Amino acid sequence: MNILEERILKDGYILDENIIKVDSFLNHQLDIKFLSELADIIKDYFKDKKINKILTIEASGIALATMLSEKFDYAPVVFAKKQKNKNLGKDVFESHVKSFTTDKEYRVTVSKKFLSPDDNLLIVDDFLAEGNALKGLIAIAKQSGSNIEGIAVAVEKGFQEGGKIIRNEGHDLLSLAIIDSIENGEIKFK
Amino acid sequence: MNILEERILKDGYILDENIIKVDSFLNHQLDIKFLSELADIIKDYFKDKKINKILTIEASGIALATMLSEKFDYAPVVFAKKQKNKNLGKDVFESHVKSFTTDKEYRVTVSKKFLSPDDNLLIVDDFLAEGNALKGLIAIAKQSGSNIEGIAVAVEKGFQEGGKIIRNEGHDLLSLAIIDSIENGEIKFK
Repeated sequence: MNILEERILKDGYILDENIIKVDSFLNHQLDIKFLSELADIIKDYFKDKKINKILTIEASGIALATMLSEKFDYAPVVFAKKQKNKNLGKDVFESHVKSFTTDKEYRVTVSKKFLSPDDNLLIVDDFLAEGNALKGLIAIAKQSGSNIEGIAVAVEKGFQEGGKIIRNEGHDLLSLAIIDSIENGEIKFK
Repeated sequence: MNILEERILKDGYILDENIIKVDSFLNHQLDIKFLSELADIIKDYFKDKKINKILTIEASGIALATMLSEKFDYAPVVFAKKQKNKNLGKDVFESHVKSFTTDKEYRVTVSKKFLSPDDNLLIVDDFLAEGNALKGLIAIAKQSGSNIEGIAVAVEKGFQEGGKIIRNEGHDLLSLAIIDSIENGEIKFK
Protein backbone atom coordinates (compact mmCIF):
# COMPACT_ATOMS: atom_id res chain seq x y z
CA MET A 1 0.00 0.00 0.00
CA ASN A 2 1.45 3.38 -0.98
CA ILE A 3 1.25 6.67 0.89
CA LEU A 4 -1.85 7.87 -0.98
CA GLU A 5 -3.77 4.63 -0.40
CA GLU A 6 -2.88 4.81 3.30
CA ARG A 7 -3.96 8.44 3.48
CA ILE A 8 -7.28 7.72 1.73
CA LEU A 9 -8.07 5.00 4.28
CA LYS A 10 -7.04 7.30 7.14
CA ASP A 11 -8.66 10.59 6.08
CA GLY A 12 -11.01 9.84 3.18
CA TYR A 13 -14.66 9.10 3.68
CA ILE A 14 -17.48 7.75 1.59
CA LEU A 15 -20.41 9.96 0.64
CA ASP A 16 -22.27 7.23 -1.22
CA GLU A 17 -21.28 4.16 -3.21
CA ASN A 18 -19.82 6.30 -5.97
CA ILE A 19 -18.30 9.27 -4.23
CA ILE A 20 -15.23 9.28 -2.05
CA LYS A 21 -14.20 12.51 -0.40
CA VAL A 22 -10.58 13.39 0.18
CA ASP A 23 -11.23 17.05 0.86
CA SER A 24 -9.11 17.25 4.01
CA PHE A 25 -5.84 16.88 2.08
CA LEU A 26 -6.34 16.78 -1.71
CA ASN A 27 -9.04 19.08 -3.07
CA HIS A 28 -10.42 21.60 -0.58
CA GLN A 29 -7.92 21.69 2.24
CA LEU A 30 -4.50 20.88 0.77
CA ASP A 31 -1.63 19.15 2.55
CA ILE A 32 1.20 20.63 0.52
CA LYS A 33 3.97 18.50 2.06
CA PHE A 34 1.97 15.42 1.16
CA LEU A 35 1.34 16.71 -2.37
CA SER A 36 5.10 17.22 -2.69
CA GLU A 37 5.61 13.56 -1.75
CA LEU A 38 3.05 12.50 -4.36
CA ALA A 39 4.85 14.70 -6.88
CA ASP A 40 8.11 12.87 -6.06
CA ILE A 41 6.48 9.55 -6.99
CA ILE A 42 5.14 10.99 -10.24
CA LYS A 43 8.53 12.53 -11.09
CA ASP A 44 10.22 9.19 -10.49
CA TYR A 45 7.79 7.40 -12.79
CA PHE A 46 8.23 9.92 -15.61
CA LYS A 47 11.92 10.68 -14.99
CA ASP A 48 13.00 9.57 -18.49
CA LYS A 49 10.48 11.82 -20.25
CA LYS A 50 11.57 15.27 -21.37
CA ILE A 51 8.65 17.11 -19.81
CA ASN A 52 8.80 20.90 -20.17
CA LYS A 53 5.23 21.91 -19.30
CA ILE A 54 2.57 20.79 -16.82
CA LEU A 55 -1.04 21.04 -18.02
CA THR A 56 -3.92 20.84 -15.55
CA ILE A 57 -7.44 22.15 -15.08
CA GLU A 58 -8.78 24.48 -12.46
CA ALA A 59 -9.14 24.22 -9.57
CA SER A 60 -8.16 21.02 -7.74
CA GLY A 61 -5.33 20.09 -10.12
CA ILE A 62 -3.39 23.30 -9.60
CA ALA A 63 -1.69 22.54 -6.28
CA LEU A 64 -0.37 19.13 -7.40
CA ALA A 65 0.72 20.67 -10.72
CA THR A 66 2.54 23.39 -8.77
CA MET A 67 4.48 20.82 -6.75
CA LEU A 68 5.26 18.89 -9.95
CA SER A 69 6.69 22.02 -11.52
CA GLU A 70 9.28 22.07 -8.74
CA LYS A 71 10.26 18.48 -9.51
CA PHE A 72 10.55 19.11 -13.27
CA ASP A 73 13.01 22.02 -13.14
CA TYR A 74 10.23 24.56 -12.67
CA ALA A 75 8.47 23.69 -15.91
CA PRO A 76 5.64 26.21 -16.38
CA VAL A 77 2.17 25.15 -15.26
CA VAL A 78 -0.77 25.95 -17.52
CA PHE A 79 -4.23 25.49 -16.12
CA ALA A 80 -7.26 25.18 -18.37
CA LYS A 81 -10.11 27.51 -17.44
CA LYS A 82 -13.56 26.15 -16.85
CA GLN A 83 -15.76 29.00 -17.94
CA LYS A 84 -15.74 31.65 -20.56
CA ASN A 85 -13.94 34.61 -19.18
CA LYS A 86 -14.44 37.78 -21.11
CA ASN A 87 -10.80 38.71 -20.49
CA LEU A 88 -9.37 35.52 -21.91
CA GLY A 89 -9.66 36.60 -25.52
CA LYS A 90 -10.89 34.53 -28.43
CA ASP A 91 -7.59 32.99 -29.31
CA VAL A 92 -8.06 29.79 -27.34
CA PHE A 93 -7.97 26.04 -27.71
CA GLU A 94 -11.22 24.69 -26.34
CA SER A 95 -13.20 21.59 -25.53
CA HIS A 96 -16.42 20.76 -23.73
CA VAL A 97 -16.45 18.73 -20.55
CA LYS A 98 -19.23 17.17 -18.54
CA SER A 99 -18.63 17.20 -14.81
CA PHE A 100 -19.31 13.96 -12.97
CA THR A 101 -19.79 15.74 -9.66
CA THR A 102 -22.03 18.60 -10.75
CA ASP A 103 -23.62 16.99 -13.83
CA LYS A 104 -23.16 20.22 -15.80
CA GLU A 105 -21.37 20.66 -19.08
CA TYR A 106 -18.83 23.41 -19.22
CA ARG A 107 -16.39 24.88 -21.70
CA VAL A 108 -12.69 24.44 -21.08
CA THR A 109 -10.16 26.78 -22.66
CA VAL A 110 -6.42 27.37 -22.85
CA SER A 111 -4.95 30.43 -24.51
CA LYS A 112 -3.14 29.57 -27.74
CA LYS A 113 -0.16 31.49 -26.40
CA PHE A 114 0.66 28.80 -23.86
CA LEU A 115 0.67 25.51 -25.78
CA SER A 116 2.65 24.74 -28.92
CA PRO A 117 4.27 21.82 -30.77
CA ASP A 118 7.44 22.54 -28.77
CA ASP A 119 5.73 21.44 -25.56
CA ASN A 120 6.18 18.00 -24.03
CA LEU A 121 3.32 17.81 -21.61
CA LEU A 122 2.62 16.09 -18.35
CA ILE A 123 -1.15 16.32 -17.88
CA VAL A 124 -2.22 16.25 -14.24
CA ASP A 125 -5.44 16.15 -12.26
CA ASP A 126 -6.57 15.14 -8.81
CA PHE A 127 -9.34 12.69 -9.78
CA LEU A 128 -10.15 10.40 -12.68
CA ALA A 129 -13.64 8.91 -12.88
CA GLU A 130 -15.35 8.99 -16.28
CA GLY A 131 -12.30 10.82 -17.56
CA ASN A 132 -14.17 13.80 -18.94
CA ALA A 133 -11.80 16.45 -17.63
CA LEU A 134 -8.75 14.56 -18.87
CA LYS A 135 -10.36 13.95 -22.25
CA GLY A 136 -10.91 17.70 -22.50
CA LEU A 137 -7.26 18.38 -21.68
CA ILE A 138 -6.11 15.73 -24.18
CA ALA A 139 -8.29 17.32 -26.88
CA ILE A 140 -6.79 20.74 -26.15
CA ALA A 141 -3.25 19.32 -26.19
CA LYS A 142 -3.93 17.73 -29.58
CA GLN A 143 -5.34 20.97 -31.00
CA SER A 144 -2.13 22.70 -29.99
CA GLY A 145 0.15 20.08 -31.51
CA SER A 146 1.84 19.51 -28.13
CA ASN A 147 3.24 16.08 -27.28
CA ILE A 148 1.54 14.31 -24.42
CA GLU A 149 4.42 12.59 -22.64
CA GLY A 150 2.35 11.32 -19.76
CA ILE A 151 -0.76 11.73 -17.65
CA ALA A 152 -0.82 11.54 -13.86
CA VAL A 153 -3.74 11.57 -11.46
CA ALA A 154 -3.87 11.13 -7.73
CA VAL A 155 -7.04 9.03 -7.42
CA GLU A 156 -8.58 6.89 -10.15
CA LYS A 157 -11.97 5.32 -9.62
CA GLY A 158 -11.20 2.01 -11.31
CA PHE A 159 -14.86 1.01 -11.43
CA GLN A 160 -15.58 3.85 -13.83
CA GLU A 161 -14.47 3.90 -17.45
CA GLY A 162 -12.12 6.87 -17.68
CA GLY A 163 -8.83 5.11 -16.96
CA LYS A 164 -9.57 2.28 -19.37
CA ILE A 165 -10.51 4.66 -22.20
CA ILE A 166 -7.38 6.78 -21.74
CA ARG A 167 -5.03 3.77 -21.54
CA ASN A 168 -6.67 2.24 -24.62
CA GLU A 169 -5.79 5.40 -26.52
CA GLY A 170 -2.15 4.59 -25.80
CA HIS A 171 -1.46 7.21 -23.16
CA ASP A 172 1.03 6.54 -20.38
CA LEU A 173 -1.33 7.09 -17.44
CA LEU A 174 -0.11 6.88 -13.86
CA SER A 175 -2.79 6.73 -11.16
CA LEU A 176 -1.31 6.84 -7.68
CA ALA A 177 -4.31 5.10 -6.13
CA ILE A 178 -6.87 3.09 -8.07
CA ILE A 179 -10.06 2.43 -6.17
CA ASP A 180 -11.44 -0.94 -7.22
CA SER A 181 -14.66 -0.83 -5.24
CA ILE A 182 -16.52 1.00 -2.51
CA GLU A 183 -18.86 -1.46 -0.83
CA ASN A 184 -20.47 -1.43 2.59
CA GLY A 185 -18.31 1.48 3.61
CA GLU A 186 -15.12 -0.30 2.67
CA ILE A 187 -12.66 1.02 0.09
CA LYS A 188 -10.69 -1.56 -1.86
CA PHE A 189 -7.72 -0.68 -4.06
CA LYS A 190 -6.60 -2.42 -7.21
CA MET B 1 11.08 48.62 -8.40
CA ASN B 2 10.58 45.08 -7.09
CA ILE B 3 10.62 41.80 -9.04
CA LEU B 4 6.86 41.76 -9.59
CA GLU B 5 6.73 45.33 -10.88
CA GLU B 6 9.61 44.53 -13.25
CA ARG B 7 7.86 41.38 -14.43
CA ILE B 8 4.57 43.20 -15.02
CA LEU B 9 6.34 45.76 -17.21
CA LYS B 10 8.17 42.99 -19.07
CA ASP B 11 5.37 40.42 -19.57
CA GLY B 12 2.10 42.12 -18.66
CA TYR B 13 -0.08 43.82 -21.20
CA ILE B 14 -3.05 46.14 -21.15
CA LEU B 15 -6.41 44.97 -22.45
CA ASP B 16 -8.15 48.29 -21.82
CA GLU B 17 -7.74 51.14 -19.36
CA ASN B 18 -8.96 48.97 -16.50
CA ILE B 19 -7.67 45.50 -17.24
CA ILE B 20 -4.07 44.40 -17.08
CA LYS B 21 -3.23 40.85 -18.07
CA VAL B 22 -0.46 38.89 -16.41
CA ASP B 23 -1.57 35.54 -17.71
CA SER B 24 1.85 34.42 -18.92
CA PHE B 25 3.18 34.01 -15.36
CA LEU B 26 0.52 34.64 -12.69
CA ASN B 27 -2.95 33.39 -13.52
CA HIS B 28 -3.18 31.12 -16.55
CA GLN B 29 0.35 30.03 -17.24
CA LEU B 30 2.19 29.96 -13.92
CA ASP B 31 5.90 30.59 -13.39
CA ILE B 32 6.31 28.57 -10.20
CA LYS B 33 9.89 29.63 -9.50
CA PHE B 34 8.77 33.25 -9.69
CA LEU B 35 5.77 32.55 -7.44
CA SER B 36 8.19 31.03 -4.94
CA GLU B 37 10.22 34.25 -5.01
CA LEU B 38 7.03 36.27 -4.40
CA ALA B 39 6.18 33.92 -1.54
CA ASP B 40 9.60 34.61 -0.01
CA ILE B 41 8.80 38.34 0.04
CA ILE B 42 5.40 37.69 1.63
CA LYS B 43 6.94 35.33 4.21
CA ASP B 44 9.52 37.95 5.12
CA TYR B 45 6.83 40.61 5.63
CA PHE B 46 4.70 38.36 7.85
CA LYS B 47 7.58 36.52 9.54
CA ASP B 48 6.56 37.59 13.05
CA LYS B 49 2.97 36.38 12.66
CA LYS B 50 2.07 32.90 13.86
CA ILE B 51 0.35 31.82 10.66
CA ASN B 52 -0.86 28.22 10.64
CA LYS B 53 -3.24 28.21 7.67
CA ILE B 54 -3.35 29.80 4.21
CA LEU B 55 -6.80 30.74 2.92
CA THR B 56 -7.37 31.51 -0.75
CA ILE B 57 -10.04 31.23 -3.42
CA GLU B 58 -10.10 29.12 -6.55
CA ALA B 59 -8.52 29.19 -8.98
CA SER B 60 -5.75 31.75 -9.50
CA GLY B 61 -4.88 32.06 -5.82
CA ILE B 62 -4.04 28.40 -5.36
CA ALA B 63 -0.54 28.29 -6.84
CA LEU B 64 0.72 31.26 -4.80
CA ALA B 65 -0.94 29.81 -1.69
CA THR B 66 0.79 26.50 -2.38
CA MET B 67 4.20 28.17 -2.52
CA LEU B 68 3.38 30.12 0.66
CA SER B 69 2.57 26.89 2.46
CA GLU B 70 6.16 25.80 1.86
CA LYS B 71 7.45 29.01 3.43
CA PHE B 72 5.18 28.72 6.49
CA ASP B 73 6.21 25.20 7.60
CA TYR B 74 3.72 23.54 5.26
CA ALA B 75 0.71 25.22 6.82
CA PRO B 76 -2.40 23.71 5.19
CA VAL B 77 -3.96 25.61 2.31
CA VAL B 78 -7.74 25.93 2.19
CA PHE B 79 -9.28 27.24 -0.99
CA ALA B 80 -12.80 28.62 -1.04
CA LYS B 81 -15.00 27.15 -3.75
CA LYS B 82 -16.79 29.39 -6.19
CA GLN B 83 -19.90 27.41 -6.97
CA LYS B 84 -22.28 25.18 -5.17
CA ASN B 85 -20.96 21.66 -5.48
CA LYS B 86 -23.42 18.97 -4.57
CA ASN B 87 -20.61 17.01 -2.93
CA LEU B 88 -19.54 19.80 -0.65
CA GLY B 89 -22.27 19.22 1.92
CA LYS B 90 -24.34 21.83 3.65
CA ASP B 91 -21.99 22.40 6.51
CA VAL B 92 -20.22 25.39 5.03
CA PHE B 93 -19.31 28.97 5.75
CA GLU B 94 -20.45 31.06 2.83
CA SER B 95 -20.51 34.50 1.30
CA HIS B 96 -21.53 36.04 -2.00
CA VAL B 97 -19.03 37.66 -4.29
CA LYS B 98 -19.40 39.76 -7.41
CA SER B 99 -16.68 39.17 -9.98
CA PHE B 100 -15.11 42.26 -11.50
CA THR B 101 -13.93 40.36 -14.59
CA THR B 102 -17.10 38.40 -15.39
CA ASP B 103 -19.66 40.71 -13.79
CA LYS B 104 -21.49 37.72 -12.29
CA GLU B 105 -22.30 37.11 -8.67
CA TYR B 106 -21.31 33.75 -7.28
CA ARG B 107 -21.47 31.92 -4.00
CA VAL B 108 -18.24 31.19 -2.17
CA THR B 109 -18.03 28.39 0.37
CA VAL B 110 -15.58 26.76 2.76
CA SER B 111 -16.40 23.60 4.64
CA LYS B 112 -16.79 24.20 8.37
CA LYS B 113 -14.31 21.38 8.96
CA PHE B 114 -11.39 23.43 7.74
CA LEU B 115 -11.62 26.75 9.58
CA SER B 116 -11.84 27.24 13.33
CA PRO B 117 -10.95 29.75 16.08
CA ASP B 118 -7.59 27.93 16.38
CA ASP B 119 -6.57 29.14 12.94
CA ASN B 120 -4.30 32.13 12.36
CA LEU B 121 -4.86 32.91 8.73
CA LEU B 122 -2.89 34.41 5.93
CA ILE B 123 -5.44 35.24 3.24
CA VAL B 124 -3.97 35.24 -0.28
CA ASP B 125 -5.11 36.06 -3.79
CA ASP B 126 -3.53 36.98 -7.08
CA PHE B 127 -5.45 40.21 -7.76
CA LEU B 128 -7.15 42.94 -5.76
CA ALA B 129 -9.41 45.39 -7.60
CA GLU B 130 -12.77 46.17 -5.99
CA GLY B 131 -11.84 43.67 -3.28
CA ASN B 132 -14.93 41.52 -3.67
CA ALA B 133 -13.16 38.17 -3.51
CA LEU B 134 -11.13 39.23 -0.48
CA LYS B 135 -14.21 40.62 1.25
CA GLY B 136 -15.84 37.23 0.72
CA LEU B 137 -12.86 35.44 2.25
CA ILE B 138 -12.77 37.88 5.18
CA ALA B 139 -16.50 37.27 5.80
CA ILE B 140 -15.94 33.52 5.79
CA ALA B 141 -12.95 33.83 8.14
CA LYS B 142 -15.06 35.91 10.54
CA GLN B 143 -17.91 33.37 10.47
CA SER B 144 -15.42 30.68 11.46
CA GLY B 145 -13.92 32.68 14.32
CA SER B 146 -10.45 32.38 12.76
CA ASN B 147 -7.91 35.14 13.30
CA ILE B 148 -6.88 37.03 10.20
CA GLU B 149 -3.17 37.65 10.75
CA GLY B 150 -2.57 39.16 7.36
CA ILE B 151 -3.66 39.47 3.76
CA ALA B 152 -1.34 39.28 0.76
CA VAL B 153 -2.03 39.85 -2.91
CA ALA B 154 0.28 39.93 -5.86
CA VAL B 155 -1.25 42.81 -7.84
CA GLU B 156 -3.43 45.58 -6.42
CA LYS B 157 -5.15 47.99 -8.74
CA GLY B 158 -4.66 51.08 -6.63
CA PHE B 159 -7.14 53.12 -8.67
CA GLN B 160 -9.97 50.87 -7.50
CA GLU B 161 -11.38 50.85 -4.00
CA GLY B 162 -10.62 47.37 -2.67
CA GLY B 163 -7.28 48.02 -1.04
CA LYS B 164 -8.49 51.18 0.67
CA ILE B 165 -11.59 49.47 2.08
CA ILE B 166 -9.62 46.50 3.41
CA ARG B 167 -6.91 48.66 4.99
CA ASN B 168 -9.56 50.91 6.55
CA GLU B 169 -10.98 47.85 8.27
CA GLY B 170 -7.63 47.51 10.03
CA HIS B 171 -6.25 44.53 8.12
CA ASP B 172 -2.53 44.16 7.53
CA LEU B 173 -2.62 44.02 3.73
CA LEU B 174 0.54 43.50 1.68
CA SER B 175 0.26 44.15 -2.05
CA LEU B 176 3.44 43.26 -3.91
CA ALA B 177 2.69 45.62 -6.77
CA ILE B 178 0.21 48.49 -6.62
CA ILE B 179 -0.79 49.85 -10.00
CA ASP B 180 -1.47 53.53 -9.66
CA SER B 181 -2.66 54.18 -13.19
CA ILE B 182 -2.88 52.69 -16.66
CA GLU B 183 -2.88 55.55 -19.15
CA ASN B 184 -1.99 55.64 -22.84
CA GLY B 185 -0.60 52.13 -22.61
CA GLU B 186 1.68 52.99 -19.72
CA ILE B 187 1.54 51.29 -16.34
CA LYS B 188 2.53 53.38 -13.34
CA PHE B 189 3.13 51.89 -9.90
CA LYS B 190 2.52 53.56 -6.57
